Formats: sequence, C-alpha cells, structure tokens
Amino acid sequence: MQDVSSLVALAREGRPRAVARLISLVEGASPQLREVMAALAPLTGNAYVVGLTGSPGVGKSTSTSALVSAYRKQGKRVGVLAVDPSSPFSGGALLGDRVRMSEHASDPGVYIRSMATRGHLGGLAWAAPQAIRVLDAAGCDVILVETVGVGQSEVEIASQADTSVVLLAPGMGDGIQAAKAGILEIGDVYVVNKADRDGADATARELNHMLSLGESRGPGDWRPPIVKTVAARAEGVDEVVEALEKHRAWMEERGVLTERRRARAAREVETIAVTALRERIGDLHGDRRLSALAERIVAGELDPYRAADELVTSLTGS
Amino acid sequence: MQDVSSLVALAREGRPRAVARLISLVEGASPQLREVMAALAPLTGNAYVVGLTGSPGVGKSTSTSALVSAYRKQGKRVGVLAVDPSSPFSGGALLGDRVRMSEHASDPGVYIRSMATRGHLGGLAWAAPQAIRVLDAAGCDVILVETVGVGQSEVEIASQADTSVVLLAPGMGDGIQAAKAGILEIGDVYVVNKADRDGADATARELNHMLSLGESRGPGDWRPPIVKTVAARAEGVDEVVEALEKHRAWMEERGVLTERRRARAAREVETIAVTALRERIGDLHGDRRLSALAERIVAGELDPYRAADELVTSLTGS
Repeated sequence: MQDVSSLVALAREGRPRAVARLISLVEGASPQLREVMAALAPLTGNAYVVGLTGSPGVGKSTSTSALVSAYRKQGKRVGVLAVDPSSPFSGGALLGDRVRMSEHASDPGVYIRSMATRGHLGGLAWAAPQAIRVLDAAGCDVILVETVGVGQSEVEIASQADTSVVLLAPGMGDGIQAAKAGILEIGDVYVVNKADRDGADATARELNHMLSLGESRGPGDWRPPIVKTVAARAEGVDEVVEALEKHRAWMEERGVLTERRRARAAREVETIAVTALRERIGDLHGDRRLSALAERIVAGELDPYRAADELVTSLTGS
Repeated sequence: MQDVSSLVALAREGRPRAVARLISLVEGASPQLREVMAALAPLTGNAYVVGLTGSPGVGKSTSTSALVSAYRKQGKRVGVLAVDPSSPFSGGALLGDRVRMSEHASDPGVYIRSMATRGHLGGLAWAAPQAIRVLDAAGCDVILVETVGVGQSEVEIASQADTSVVLLAPGMGDGIQAAKAGILEIGDVYVVNKADRDGADATARELNHMLSLGESRGPGDWRPPIVKTVAARAEGVDEVVEALEKHRAWMEERGVLTERRRARAAREVETIAVTALRERIGDLHGDRRLSALAERIVAGELDPYRAADELVTSLTGS
C-alpha cells in the first residue's frame, strides 16, 4: 500500500482514488489515522463547508446536485459528503441510490462520498469532521454535507458546517413539526424547495413569521433569508448560492467564520479525547471488570454513580 | 426542601409529587443526584421496561395509552416515560399536547412523565436510565418508554428497554424506510397499528418477509411476532400484552433479561464515567485552554488528534 505522504500528494492533485483511500483510512480509524490527520493539518482551512438538512421528501439530493452544478459553473471544485446516520453501509454502497447525483459522477471537479455513521464511535460527531478535512486538503473549494434519510442529526450536521441550509417543501406537516423541533435555531439560509407546488408561498410566509418570532436581532445581525427554489429545474439555485456567499461574507467581516471553526475544532478535540478515555477504561478493566460492576448494579448492591467513580478513580488516580 | 430518604419513602407509597420531585432531581443533575441514586439502588430491578418506537404518525401515543389501560386492567402500576429527543422542554411542558393520555391523568396507578433530552449531556443515554430507576423504585410494575417526535433515537430507546416494541402503520413509505434503516435489528415485538386501513396486511407481510431474511435463528431463539392493532379502539392490544409477556418469559427462561440489564447497567456506568472525565477536562483546562488548541487547529498548526493527546495526557498523567 502507498505511504501516507504520497497519498496526500495525489489527493492534492485531485486524484479521486487517493481521496477515497484517505477517507477510508480516517473513517475506519485505521492505524494510519493519526499520520493522515497530521499530514492533512497544514493543508486544511480553505474549503467553505455548507450543511444541508431537511425532512425526507423535501428534495435534498436534488438540491445538492443543483448546487454542485451552480458551483461548477463558477469553476469551483466541489466535495459532497452524503451522511446517512441510520445506515450501516458506508463508502460506495449508497451511491447506487443516488441517481440524481449521477450527472456529476464523471466530473473530475466533483468528489462525491457517502458515509454511514451508525455504529461509529461517537457517530457523526466523530466521522464527518475527518472526511471534511480530507476533502478540504484535497483542494475542494466548497464541501456540501448532506444528511440522507431520517432527520434528528440535523443539529449535529449544522454544527459541522460553516453555513447551514435548512430545506423545506410546501404542504409537509413534517416540515412545520421539524421547524418546531429546532431547525429555527440552526438555519443560516432557508430554502423552500418545490416552490411550483401549491402552498409554497404559505410555507415561506409561515417560516418567515416563525423566524420573526425568534430572538431579537440587533442591527448587523444575520437575518436568515428564505429562498424559493425548484431544484429539479435549477430554478432559484443561483439565488441560494448568492445567499450562501452573502452569509460567508458576513461571517468573514465579523470574525464569525473563524469563531465557528474554532468552536468546531474544540468539539472535535473533546470528542477524540473522550473517545480515547473511553478506550482506556476498556483497556484498563477489560469487559469483565465493567461486567462485575454492572452485575452489582442489577442486583441493587451498587448505584451507577459509585460504579462510575471506581472507573474514573482507577484511570486518573483521584 | 424534603430530605432524600423521606422523598424516596413517599415515592414508594406512590405519591406522584414525590416521584416527580425525584425525577426532577436526577434529570437536572442536582447536587442530590448521587444521594438519590444511592437511595434508589436497593429498590430497583422489579419493573419491566418496554420501549415503544416508530415513525411519527404510526400512533405511538394512542398505542401507549391503550397499553396503559390493558395493564391497569391487570391491576399493575404503570409508569410512562415520554422521551422527546428533539425538544428542549421538559417536565410537564409537553403533557398539554398529549390529550390521548389524559384519560389516565387522574389514575393514581399511572405515573406519566415527559422528558426532553435535547441539550442534555449524553442526551437520552444519560437522562432516561435515571428516570427509569426512579419509576422502578417507586413501585411501577411496567414502565413504557415512548419516543415522542421524530425518530432516530430508536436504537437508543431500544437499548434502555427489556423489550422493544416497534410500531408501523400501513401505507407509510416512511415505515419501510425506517425498516431498512435498522428497526429490524431492534424489535422484539412488531405492531402494525391502524390495521383497519388499506394495506395493513401488505405491511405485515412485507415486514414478515424482511424479518425472515434476517439472520438465521436456531431452535429456541426468539422470533419477533407481528401483532395487528387498532389502538384507537383498543383492538389487538391484549394480544400485544400477551406478546410482551411471552417475550419476558422467554428472556427470563434463558437468562436474557439479566444479561440485557447488565449490558444496560454497564453502558450506564460507562456513560457516567465518560461524562465525569469530560467535566474534568473542562475543570482542568478551562475553556481557554481548549480554545487555544482549537485556534492552532484552525490555523493548520496542529491536528485534532495531537490536541486530544495533550488533553488526555494532562488528565491521566500518561
């Protein structure tokens, strides 16, 4: 197998196989993981990361694909990370389903990757940032991170992105439920897709109303715009790109972009540290030790907090 | 305020306010949390914990309510924990919406609690087991743990339960998508609700087919039954209770119940220990230390793994 530095060099040249191999290495927590991450560090920080979330049926894949086209027209290199938090299948496995993406499959300026996070240690929080780093280092100007399948990881996806796009479609009770459930806090840009359908204006109005009910904004604060699109016909997609660029410019002006990236890096470090500590607990005690504690808890002889104290003490010495 | 031991004594007598107060103490990670958990430990282990999961619209609340009625007919004390992983509102806040549960609101043999896990450290994994322990110690014979709102925490809910019920409804593409996404691995009992609607038989057949494609079962292994219900009219609900009792008996015979509870306790201890370690990282370094590492990562001077190493080393001394 190739050494890490030549893989990184090939990825920098845009060789898709090298990129794929690097993502597999970091995603699979391979022995080379640390070496790869160290090699990538100085090459990262250039890509603009856009998260796309929304309920099933709003047209996420179509919208992502349309955005890819729009950015390609500008000559940008685009990475797409399609994250499926509910699927155990990773790598190319999901791509078969993603017919709408197929138009970009042969474009060397587009790198598409599916990623399953179910079963991963730490799930999305752990796996996605690593893959984003690879795409970033590989020279992608824009990275679109799209959740596939059922929602609920929306907040997590949003926390990985520089800018979060929340997609809605008219006439979906789900959309409003999702809105209630917290998307109003995460969207930097809202898109009402399928805007040629009945109810698109009503959905946009309702959304606008809900956004205006939110926390009071001062002058100069970001007011998330609402863009109507028909992604399947590429209508309104340039306006989405424009809204994204505006948000990016606003973030850069205010130092928000750096602030968000630092917060993201801090969370990433914390997740990795906690994962390492968790592994040490396992190494230190083996499963049998933890099992013995669990047995006493089930028997009512010990409560979980005292049991946890024992583990922590043995790890840190106090 | 009352001391913990008298609160526990009152909760044992079935006083709802004492139960509510104890759940608030454990849920809010109050200073008394450890004292409460220690006091509860010898009183737990009697309740049978049933998890109910399914996509929005399958009739989870209605089914939960119908199950409560069925267990009440048997004279059992029932606890209901309605967990909303997407809501920041906890306690009684959600109960206003739960009209279908209102028939049980005045029954002293039923304890209903809504719980929000969004924003919680460790989310569901952290908060739900604590509340289950309180309801268990308070003398509930059966505890129904229902996810409210959008799915995705299904697997987590299932991991808290002795027996997991997965609900489906006919004619929901979502149901099958959810099925694809992993519910086939978590259900001990499957319920096709709204069985008076078109397509119920087809849904049951399809589900049966998918289950038969699963891993091969040996003789004596549990084959998840599929029960058809119309929960709104209480049809088929006794059959669900029967299926639950069969599963419970099967687990007890084979030692699976104890095994599952031990695995659950082990995960609980691990979660608490990791949370404690995470807090120590915060205590040790303060936010500024982590921020400084994050800054270097964003600048490309450090990769997140080396940064995490620094944190871990300072915590454990190696």
